[in-house]
Amino acid sequence: MSEIENGSAKIITLGGVGEIGKNMTAIEYGGEILIIDCGLMFPDEELLGVDIVIPDITYLVENADKVKGMLLTHGHEDHIGAIPYVLPRLNVPIWGSGLTLGLLQAKLEEHSLLDTTELHQVEPGDRFKIGNFDVETIRVSHSIPDGFAIALRFPFGIIVHTGDFKFDQTPIDGKVVDFGKFTQLGLEGVSVLLSDSTNVEKPGYVPSERVVGNKFEEIFSRSFGKIIIATFASNIHRMQQVYNTADLYDRKVAVVGRSMAQNTEIAERLGYLTIPEGVKIELKEISDYPPDKVVVMTTGSQGEPMSALTRIATNDHKLVKVQPGDTVIISATSIPGNESLVMRMINQLFKRGADVIYDAIDFVHVSGHANREELKLMLNLTKPRYTVPVHGEYRHVVKYSELAHETGMPKENIFRMEAGDVLEVGADGASMLPRVTAGYVLVDGIGIGDVGDIVLRDRRHLADDGIFVVIISIDRVTGDIVAGPDVISRGFIYMDEAEALVEEAKQVAIETVQGMSDEAAEEWATVKQDLRSAVAKRLYARTHRRPMVIPVIMEI
Amino acid sequence: MSEIENGSAKIITLGGVGEIGKNMTAIEYGGEILIIDCGLMFPDEELLGVDIVIPDITYLVENADKVKGMLLTHGHEDHIGAIPYVLPRLNVPIWGSGLTLGLLQAKLEEHSLLDTTELHQVEPGDRFKIGNFDVETIRVSHSIPDGFAIALRFPFGIIVHTGDFKFDQTPIDGKVVDFGKFTQLGLEGVSVLLSDSTNVEKPGYVPSERVVGNKFEEIFSRSFGKIIIATFASNIHRMQQVYNTADLYDRKVAVVGRSMAQNTEIAERLGYLTIPEGVKIELKEISDYPPDKVVVMTTGSQGEPMSALTRIATNDHKLVKVQPGDTVIISATSIPGNESLVMRMINQLFKRGADVIYDAIDFVHVSGHANREELKLMLNLTKPRYTVPVHGEYRHVVKYSELAHETGMPKENIFRMEAGDVLEVGADGASMLPRVTAGYVLVDGIGIGDVGDIVLRDRRHLADDGIFVVIISIDRVTGDIVAGPDVISRGFIYMDEAEALVEEAKQVAIETVQGMSDEAAEEWATVKQDLRSAVAKRLYARTHRRPMVIPVIMEI
Repeated sequence: MSEIENGSAKIITLGGVGEIGKNMTAIEYGGEILIIDCGLMFPDEELLGVDIVIPDITYLVENADKVKGMLLTHGHEDHIGAIPYVLPRLNVPIWGSGLTLGLLQAKLEEHSLLDTTELHQVEPGDRFKIGNFDVETIRVSHSIPDGFAIALRFPFGIIVHTGDFKFDQTPIDGKVVDFGKFTQLGLEGVSVLLSDSTNVEKPGYVPSERVVGNKFEEIFSRSFGKIIIATFASNIHRMQQVYNTADLYDRKVAVVGRSMAQNTEIAERLGYLTIPEGVKIELKEISDYPPDKVVVMTTGSQGEPMSALTRIATNDHKLVKVQPGDTVIISATSIPGNESLVMRMINQLFKRGADVIYDAIDFVHVSGHANREELKLMLNLTKPRYTVPVHGEYRHVVKYSELAHETGMPKENIFRMEAGDVLEVGADGASMLPRVTAGYVLVDGIGIGDVGDIVLRDRRHLADDGIFVVIISIDRVTGDIVAGPDVISRGFIYMDEAEALVEEAKQVAIETVQGMSDEAAEEWATVKQDLRSAVAKRLYARTHRRPMVIPVIMEI
Repeated sequence: MSEIENGSAKIITLGGVGEIGKNMTAIEYGGEILIIDCGLMFPDEELLGVDIVIPDITYLVENADKVKGMLLTHGHEDHIGAIPYVLPRLNVPIWGSGLTLGLLQAKLEEHSLLDTTELHQVEPGDRFKIGNFDVETIRVSHSIPDGFAIALRFPFGIIVHTGDFKFDQTPIDGKVVDFGKFTQLGLEGVSVLLSDSTNVEKPGYVPSERVVGNKFEEIFSRSFGKIIIATFASNIHRMQQVYNTADLYDRKVAVVGRSMAQNTEIAERLGYLTIPEGVKIELKEISDYPPDKVVVMTTGSQGEPMSALTRIATNDHKLVKVQPGDTVIISATSIPGNESLVMRMINQLFKRGADVIYDAIDFVHVSGHANREELKLMLNLTKPRYTVPVHGEYRHVVKYSELAHETGMPKENIFRMEAGDVLEVGADGASMLPRVTAGYVLVDGIGIGDVGDIVLRDRRHLADDGIFVVIISIDRVTGDIVAGPDVISRGFIYMDEAEALVEEAKQVAIETVQGMSDEAAEEWATVKQDLRSAVAKRLYARTHRRPMVIPVIMEI
């Protein structure tokens, strides 16, 4: 039993704290559960062949009857991307703003889940009920429009979840953060602040999105060739600034990349993007205009090998060719792990003769996450009793804890939560409870969770040194070799020039099998083991490589 | 025939220009060739399983009789690392400074090449002959001591190769860049400046190495636990500052990591490192001292999975354990491509309770390469007629060209050279000649050049989706299946839970083989092809994965 009085709430971290992506938090109170966000994570380089990573929702499935709904802070993949994988196991009604639901609907349609999902549109500033949860949404700024923070009122106080936020004092859509509401919540009494901590390493304030527009104008004014701008497909305000600047400089804008075309359509239809009359053209029309009248807006700012911009950079795109005199603007930051891919792409674009403008040399991107002074401001506006950094890698969580302490919060009131951690909070205090099942699930193709450590270890081994399969057919009565050894090898060595090595390995195999005593030969497992180590040893001696050696013995 | 008068020299790029690492340049004049540097490159993430990348020296081997020697600007891997792989094909005498040769000797010894290699020690500021080449060395600053730039005097003017450089006005060893010599060369008449361009994206000047020492003092003064400092094993001046600061704060220093231990020994023996009396202890002795009396200096600043610091971070190191209260300083920058590995390691160190101090949050590293103002200063001191940026990725080469133009150099006098490019330069001018064979050679284990595109493509395929081998024994007379199908699969799916899928694949295989017409069955290649595509199709339908499917038919 908990020491905290009845009427306490549990904050359950199901993903996202201590790691970028895969944001998912559950709030449990009075026998009801509210889920906040349900994001995916893109795999790091060690998760070979894995497509995406989603949260483990075992705890929610086990408590499915308690789950009253899911509330989405904004429409980024790391907050909504896992929903199509979660809904088949846990069909819950979903609340979110217009753009968030617009983007989600496109996903649900692709997964044939739209008809079976209950969606509720709310706006930043609304107050409504999900089950018995008393929910209020508060407008914030971020790199996607229409995001909000969340306030949940309980008898013991308010839980505020910031979502992803920054304080842009001059946002593109004129919709400023609701400073008044955060202040009011602070006066009313915030028990726990769950805060974005991603940019805690960065001093000061993030400059306004407007700064990027000014830079666009400067670049457009001195460009006499085609302009190609790569940015995130969800950065609607950035796209708005591209359309506005193009209009100003009498250029037409064509869009490349499926996700950008789709998001443009959704954002325009829902009124989040206003494209000036006559600016938009189809991609195939760009050849009808001189280069200095054209802007190509594209995905691929992360250098992903199959993305539009990478194909453009390697001259592998049918409709968009880079010519000397063209300008390419990488209006995005490199997501951790993508740095070298991005830099390689930039090198290729330079080789094609383009002038490339990117983060390291000019001011063509601003972050969507609050810097240090903004994080402090959020703490000082909401004046929480407790705080939990969310949405950041572990080092951000640590650095945020230091920052919160600097603003006067006692160290024991700052909780570092990782996936599975449970914080109970009530009128008398807050304390950690035993962990629940949580973690991550790998998605590869249509398989969810069928790739695990063994498969990944094998992929790593195969990636490093390839495979070497030795096949022998043996007479089950006499033990004589009746066919083979045959060798199949991939990824180990260039086989056409390794004939001698293959012959040597076959000879080792023959000697090993023939050298078996009769008793040993009755144990095929032993024969295989000996065969494997004899061949592996020889291959290592000759190459200093360790391919995966697999002996196959067929009994005839 | 060249249009430039006789007595012209050729500058031949064999590696390094337009890519980080693998620096190698040849200067050809009067029937003689001088090689400058011979570096290796570490493979990027696409070169799966490859250990290192070295320059293709075909051109030099074909002109072996002309090659008079190799001159090393400094002792970094990307300038000397390929020598052990090149010497067996091209045994040339080598010139370099004391520390450079000291580090090289250790390598040659490991490769049993020390006895057969002719080494000539020279000092920064020396003037000497290699063949008929009139060579002068000029002291520069860099992140390893004892580096130099090179001046080669020809009738048409001087060729200056900067090596890797920066201008540290207050170096740790008091040995300031030879500004006077560069000025003098400028007055004498520099024809071509081959210049480092790595940091051309960075404004201003690189702060002095001394700044890091000041920061160390600040950190030491407020640390009450163990201090672990990771840096590059070749950064002798950084190591010197660690020893000095430890001495000041009455701490003992133990070294972890083979390369750091080896380099410490070499640098101390040759007089480049002065360890204060009584400061050095053996690693196994650290437990004899309280944590606040200990400094551990280690390799692994790049988060390499098997490195000492990564093992320390994952609590996998026998002698060095991180405790809450310990301080870890990552006194290095992340080499492109390593960012996410480094960040993961930092996260792990924070989880162990350490206070981690790294580049992004404090000033614990300075670069070894000149920033923009220093690059301009080098141009203005040496006043070359032509310039070629070396040692940088392609974008650095482009940005350096812009910078050189800003200092007044005509655009047509700036040459961007990639591996294989040849620039002829003489009294009448400079122009590009036809390319020579150049590029890179992959080293995997002891194999040099036996891993190529096919092997890498297979490794990529295996890494993404694994392998699925189907083996069937067939009676060569009747065509009946006499054994199998057997299935061997790795890295595709967790096999223990995929029994049904394997059975299905076997059934597909049986049907495919039995369905063959007699004529088709006589063409095993056709059978195999059909078998492959039938099985692959079924596996894709069930999993949306594309493992490498390999059919094996054994005729009995």
